[in-house]
Amino acid sequence: MSQHKVIYDTDPGVDDAMALVFQALHPDIALLGVTSVFGNGTIETTTRNARYLAAKFAPGTPVACGAAAPLRRAAPEPLASIHGDDGLGNIRPDTHAQTGSALDPRPAHRFIIETVRAQPGEVTLIAVGPLTNLALALAEDPRIATLVKQVVIMGGAFGTDGFLGNVTPAAEANILGDPDAADVVLGAAWPVTIVGLDVTQNTIMSTAYLASIRDRAGDAGRFVWDVSRHYEDFHRKSAQLAGIYVHDSSAVAYVLAPHLYTTRSGPVRVLTDGIATGMTIQKPATMPEPAPDWDSRPACKVCIRVDAPAMLSLYEKTLCGTL
Amino acid sequence: MSQHKVIYDTDPGVDDAMALVFQALHPDIALLGVTSVFGNGTIETTTRNARYLAAKFAPGTPVACGAAAPLRRAAPEPLASIHGDDGLGNIRPDTHAQTGSALDPRPAHRFIIETVRAQPGEVTLIAVGPLTNLALALAEDPRIATLVKQVVIMGGAFGTDGFLGNVTPAAEANILGDPDAADVVLGAAWPVTIVGLDVTQNTIMSTAYLASIRDRAGDAGRFVWDVSRHYEDFHRKSAQLAGIYVHDSSAVAYVLAPHLYTTRSGPVRVLTDGIATGMTIQKPATMPEPAPDWDSRPACKVCIRVDAPAMLSLYEKTLCGTL
Repeated sequence: MSQHKVIYDTDPGVDDAMALVFQALHPDIALLGVTSVFGNGTIETTTRNARYLAAKFAPGTPVACGAAAPLRRAAPEPLASIHGDDGLGNIRPDTHAQTGSALDPRPAHRFIIETVRAQPGEVTLIAVGPLTNLALALAEDPRIATLVKQVVIMGGAFGTDGFLGNVTPAAEANILGDPDAADVVLGAAWPVTIVGLDVTQNTIMSTAYLASIRDRAGDAGRFVWDVSRHYEDFHRKSAQLAGIYVHDSSAVAYVLAPHLYTTRSGPVRVLTDGIATGMTIQKPATMPEPAPDWDSRPACKVCIRVDAPAMLSLYEKTLCGTL
Repeated sequence: MSQHKVIYDTDPGVDDAMALVFQALHPDIALLGVTSVFGNGTIETTTRNARYLAAKFAPGTPVACGAAAPLRRAAPEPLASIHGDDGLGNIRPDTHAQTGSALDPRPAHRFIIETVRAQPGEVTLIAVGPLTNLALALAEDPRIATLVKQVVIMGGAFGTDGFLGNVTPAAEANILGDPDAADVVLGAAWPVTIVGLDVTQNTIMSTAYLASIRDRAGDAGRFVWDVSRHYEDFHRKSAQLAGIYVHDSSAVAYVLAPHLYTTRSGPVRVLTDGIATGMTIQKPATMPEPAPDWDSRPACKVCIRVDAPAMLSLYEKTLCGTL
């Protein structure tokens, strides 16, 4: 098959890093660029990490620096308790000999616009942080919505697995990071698939699974193990989990193997006010009642079930080179 | 066992009527009173229907007239397409020889207060319409919250079965009927269990089931069949269902057989503004993150799974007198 040409919009972030390794090592993905955004850390931290990761795993891939804050709000606090002070589980990328990739001179949203326009109909956006860069790209050049192949977003929660949020009872971190941008991005006329907590919290890499990758996947495997130690501690303390939820890599897996995911179609709104700010609400296509706040918007696909063992096998085989 | 002393707060309504028959015929329920509220019809319609139903199935049971409109909004349109022009599936209770029960002179909320105070710790409130009467009772006499045995509410939706609403993508009809009242009632210090769409739309009385009750449960069975014809038509058209969802009777079943329901504990808020007005959002007790808008409120039990065959068997045996 032809490769998926991907721009990876990301706020690394431990699971962002693990998803970058996944993309860099899978032969069916051609990484056109990495765009950074605030989120798991400040924009300085996430951009530094994106450059470090690109240089280490996808040398030559352009990195463009994106938004430092949401469209209309203050930047949230970095999630150091989850991702470490350095955003990468305290592996301290600043102390490594590795030089980061050079920074593209364009801001992330313009990098996205120009890359999409250069290859109309061919570019997949995988977005796993707050959706600010994508919203800025749409604001500057709305027509890119018709030129993108697809947008796959890790974010949100739809309740089918019992969760409507992880940061608040009603909101998942990426969407809450910039709910205004998310409502714009989910309302644009591009084909969007949302991979949210309904499936990512049902896909768990156990400690034994991670150890096996450490022992069998060379430098990449060692890195995945090292970068996930602090993150696994967080999961142990907050969710009594001996392992980690697979958030951002699930968006990559959807691009590679959409048949592993059951989706539900229908327009999605994001709440931008009140106690449930950041909540994602889909009107299922099967609902006959009119709902003016949804009905004028294009349908998104929301992932509601996953073949988790198959997803985990895909990740493992990719890293171990046994596809 | 001793009987459950119940006040039934209701807006009949086809499924309200079927739930009243259930309560009237089950030996473990002592119906202390029926209180009406606007909702499926105007307060005139629902009160007329409550009197008709009480006289027919629970003669001597007091009926008290409740709120005509929500606390702070205009009354919604009657749901004639679902419940018929008369609120009872167009069986035309006004043409029957049956005289309705006499009306208690007290408004519903005062009937609730005085009945609860007369039997402290013993009264169960089963509320299956907009929660206005219960909110008015709390406003007039907040201490009743500590004197009620339990409150079982049919309302809301929590997404575990894929639905966050039936009237809108985010709201179920009873909660949307008076979201301000619902947020008050779910925040009071009484033991609340919520039986929402997560379980009621997973409990389905098929046409064959209803026909069997018609043929085996005497006058009550015949009534259940007749009252549900228009309602079943609505389900056929809107949900391609050869049968009906079991909404209000599920609240009664919870009182009688709580072991048939899996519940999740945690405080619940109701959204009162914006496109998701009427949405019910629980913070599961297992969520460690602080959430100030939830954390000061008492936990509610939310039903997330049901043993539907056992529930249907309980209803059938009650009506057929074969318990």
